Amino acid sequence: QVTLYGVIDTGIERVNHTNAAGDAVTRMPTLTGTLPSRWGVRGTEDLGNGASAVFQLESQFGPDTGAQGQGGRLFGRQAWLGLRGSFGTLSIGRQSNMTFHALVKTDTVGPSIHGVTNMDLYLPNARSDNALAYNGVFNNFIVGASHSFGRDANPAGFSGPSATNCPGESAADKRACRQTTALLGYDTGTWAVFTSWDKQHGGAGASNGLTRSADQERRRVISGYYLRGAVKLGGGYIKRDTVAGSRQESGLYFLGASIADRLWTYDVQCAHLDVEASPNDTTLYVARVIYHLSKRTALYGTWGYVRNRGSAAIAVDAGGTVGRGLNQSGQMLGVRHVF
Amino acid sequence: QVTLYGVIDTGIERVNHTNAAGDAVTRMPTLTGTLPSRWGVRGTEDLGNGASAVFQLESQFGPDTGAQGQGGRLFGRQAWLGLRGSFGTLSIGRQSNMTFHALVKTDTVGPSIHGVTNMDLYLPNARSDNALAYNGVFNNFIVGASHSFGRDANPAGFSGPSATNCPGESAADKRACRQTTALLGYDTGTWAVFTSWDKQHGGAGASNGLTRSADQERRRVISGYYLRGAVKLGGGYIKRDTVAGSRQESGLYFLGASIADRLWTYDVQCAHLDVEASPNDTTLYVARVIYHLSKRTALYGTWGYVRNRGSAAIAVDAGGTVGRGLNQSGQMLGVRHVF
Amino acid sequence: QVTLYGVIDTGIERVNHTNAAGDAVTRMPTLTGTLPSRWGVRGTEDLGNGASAVFQLESQFGPDTGAQGQGGRLFGRQAWLGLRGSFGTLSIGRQSNMTFHALVKTDTVGPSIHGVTNMDLYLPNARSDNALAYNGVFNNFIVGASHSFGRDANPAGFSGPSATNCPGESAADKRACRQTTALLGYDTGTWAVFTSWDKQHGGAGASNGLTRSADQERRRVISGYYLRGAVKLGGGYIKRDTVAGSRQESGLYFLGASIADRLWTYDVQCAHLDVEASPNDTTLYVARVIYHLSKRTALYGTWGYVRNRGSAAIAVDAGGTVGRGLNQSGQMLGVRHVF
Repeated sequence: QVTLYGVIDTGIERVNHTNAAGDAVTRMPTLTGTLPSRWGVRGTEDLGNGASAVFQLESQFGPDTGAQGQGGRLFGRQAWLGLRGSFGTLSIGRQSNMTFHALVKTDTVGPSIHGVTNMDLYLPNARSDNALAYNGVFNNFIVGASHSFGRDANPAGFSGPSATNCPGESAADKRACRQTTALLGYDTGTWAVFTSWDKQHGGAGASNGLTRSADQERRRVISGYYLRGAVKLGGGYIKRDTVAGSRQESGLYFLGASIADRLWTYDVQCAHLDVEASPNDTTLYVARVIYHLSKRTALYGTWGYVRNRGSAAIAVDAGGTVGRGLNQSGQMLGVRHVF
Repeated sequence: QVTLYGVIDTGIERVNHTNAAGDAVTRMPTLTGTLPSRWGVRGTEDLGNGASAVFQLESQFGPDTGAQGQGGRLFGRQAWLGLRGSFGTLSIGRQSNMTFHALVKTDTVGPSIHGVTNMDLYLPNARSDNALAYNGVFNNFIVGASHSFGRDANPAGFSGPSATNCPGESAADKRACRQTTALLGYDTGTWAVFTSWDKQHGGAGASNGLTRSADQERRRVISGYYLRGAVKLGGGYIKRDTVAGSRQESGLYFLGASIADRLWTYDVQCAHLDVEASPNDTTLYVARVIYHLSKRTALYGTWGYVRNRGSAAIAVDAGGTVGRGLNQSGQMLGVRHVF
Repeated sequence: QVTLYGVIDTGIERVNHTNAAGDAVTRMPTLTGTLPSRWGVRGTEDLGNGASAVFQLESQFGPDTGAQGQGGRLFGRQAWLGLRGSFGTLSIGRQSNMTFHALVKTDTVGPSIHGVTNMDLYLPNARSDNALAYNGVFNNFIVGASHSFGRDANPAGFSGPSATNCPGESAADKRACRQTTALLGYDTGTWAVFTSWDKQHGGAGASNGLTRSADQERRRVISGYYLRGAVKLGGGYIKRDTVAGSRQESGLYFLGASIADRLWTYDVQCAHLDVEASPNDTTLYVARVIYHLSKRTALYGTWGYVRNRGSAAIAVDAGGTVGRGLNQSGQMLGVRHVF
């Protein structure tokens, strides 16, 4: 049983202070609207005894130009095969890792154009190449782990947060670009708490200064949500620790609320990034409203405001830029269709 | 309701005088046969009250090598989402613009290997990135308009008429790579007239010499068709006006006739490009015959002859080359399948 | 009638002696497991009188990173359209050539991570761009031929055995990158013999030293299989003759056996490459076991050992490397799903 599915989500955004001169721009975003645009194929085969084979091939594209995402990969979002049973799911390939699973239910705006994921560009790209993963659910307990032999290749010479040029799998330097992540959660459906741990090694030529295999980037997430009627609260804390020559630590806090009925969804979120021993902290505020034309089609408006202190330069919009130390506001009107 | 569809159309072409030495070549074309090869996904969702959500993701490929078209874009032909109702269709994304809509019913050979679209390589690529478009039909009146915030990106370092490296959406230079097009037509089904207007701005690094945002290329189309029984006549005039440093104007005239029955389609077309204040004019003659094996599969032969005066160098075949000032003839035998 | 189909096949491999220092590596392979991962669309249309139109568009990807194969081509495995009837199949596009058809039933491990195809990297890439092909079956006789006007383009600047930068179709140098292949076989279903002939011309910038159109690489295959109950024997001989400046000849022998029941398949294969007038000979041993979880899903283990004499450097695994003159062993545990 194979399903062809997808999302097209785009619109027009306006954002000010995109450079030191403070220039504003009006454009169609490349990376996302409320969700990144994609198409994919997924399937399940019943193997008997409650077991099944499952797979997912998912391709991101930008509806602005029609180009592939993730540095020009065909199936840059997901390319994995797994076996599922009462024991959980064991999967292999390029796939989301545990940092993704710790955030997906608690970040109430998700990989939207304005949202907490802009404050750490790894978060909307929390997937690993060359990875073995395990996910299981046992009486509300969520457990998971992944190990990658080389976390992120760079098929087309592209450089960006979704293709960090750390292919690893080096015989001479076995640690290079390895990544291990783990997850523990408790999810009742009404409320949940999650905690994850994520360690990436660097490698020659890798982005973000992680150019040696001894370099490390670690993220720990504590997050949760609470659901009551039409209201959902979700928040968390992400501790990031980068050891590449010197050491840099930061903490990212986020809290959001959603109110949903059949026709309308209202979201607010705020987030704060506290860079240790630095004045370069950033605070983000997001508000979003979605009007559902049908189950699969919606119109939306989203507004974001980021306050960059010191020389911080975190853009309010996914894939955007901001003048160093400048505050920035962004607005977007868009349309989303799921097929 | 999602449909997977496509066209494979290829064959063997022969063309002479491909260079100054006058060498001929026999090959499989990359860009087209009678139609460019493609696959895509399109869908419609009924939203009630006569409204619907519609989308199209369309990917061009060359059956000669299996490579993607439009400079390596996945969905380089179409990547848009729209809302349709009695008001018309409002759509957003990479999509055909009004120059396309003014020509599609009046150019009787279309983007065929030999045809008028070879005389202005923008014509078979009359689509825009980052575009909002409106199309409506009211009592035979056809109206449409599009605006692009950046008309043509270049995902893979490719250079060609279908990826002209004008991504625009620049905060510092707001006019860069913007494009606006408009359409007015009257179409009875038996006869129609169309007129369109198309203005492109240049940008840093853009192809065709349009390297500054003040540079402009404008095209105006007047076209029409007349249908009587098995015979269709179609023709038009395209005024092109390029202002990039100096100014260059040209006029492109085309006229064609098709005769179709259940098994056979016969097409002839002639076109003339008149470059103002220049001896470098070009005249094209095309003849084509299609034999329909079924509704979806056809064999065809096509013949083209181009007469390049002065130092004109317009190739008779899509994607081809010709020695400066040389005449050129081309033949192709091909097969086409629509799925 | 259009079918969306595919294979995902991956796992973890270990291989030693990957470089002069003798370093081992553990990784997910990019190119294959037991089969290269792929997705595709194929279709058939009944044209009446026993004739049909057939096509195949097939895209290879690496489940390790989600990237496209064959140098970044969308449909790098197959992109062809054909007409089929009692006369056989006439097809056009990028497609497998006769060297592939001579080996597909007789190489009992196929393009597996460990197998004879590693000893001549053309063998798992025996397909041609810009090709016309004919295949027919008449009373157990198998006949076929193909001609390519330019055997292998290089869409994305990639260099490797599957994109050898020989696009050909040159007006000035008509022989450049042409390829002709032919096949004759006799196949009863219980036993078969095949023989093929394959000649490639070089071109400016082409890989493997074939940089002039006068350069040639020729391969002749004699192969066969014998099936008795659950046991299949398959083997053959491939004579390779490279004339690029100097001349190099080699002979590649392979022999394998498979035993299959409903749940298990056991394969062994050995191969020997004899490079003429050279001590750089190589011998390969392969053993593989497949456990079928269902008709479409299987687990497998495969083991290979290569003995490189002199300064030979043939890797035991597809896409791998080995220190010059070093022996090498590789193991892989994997999972395969066909949809």
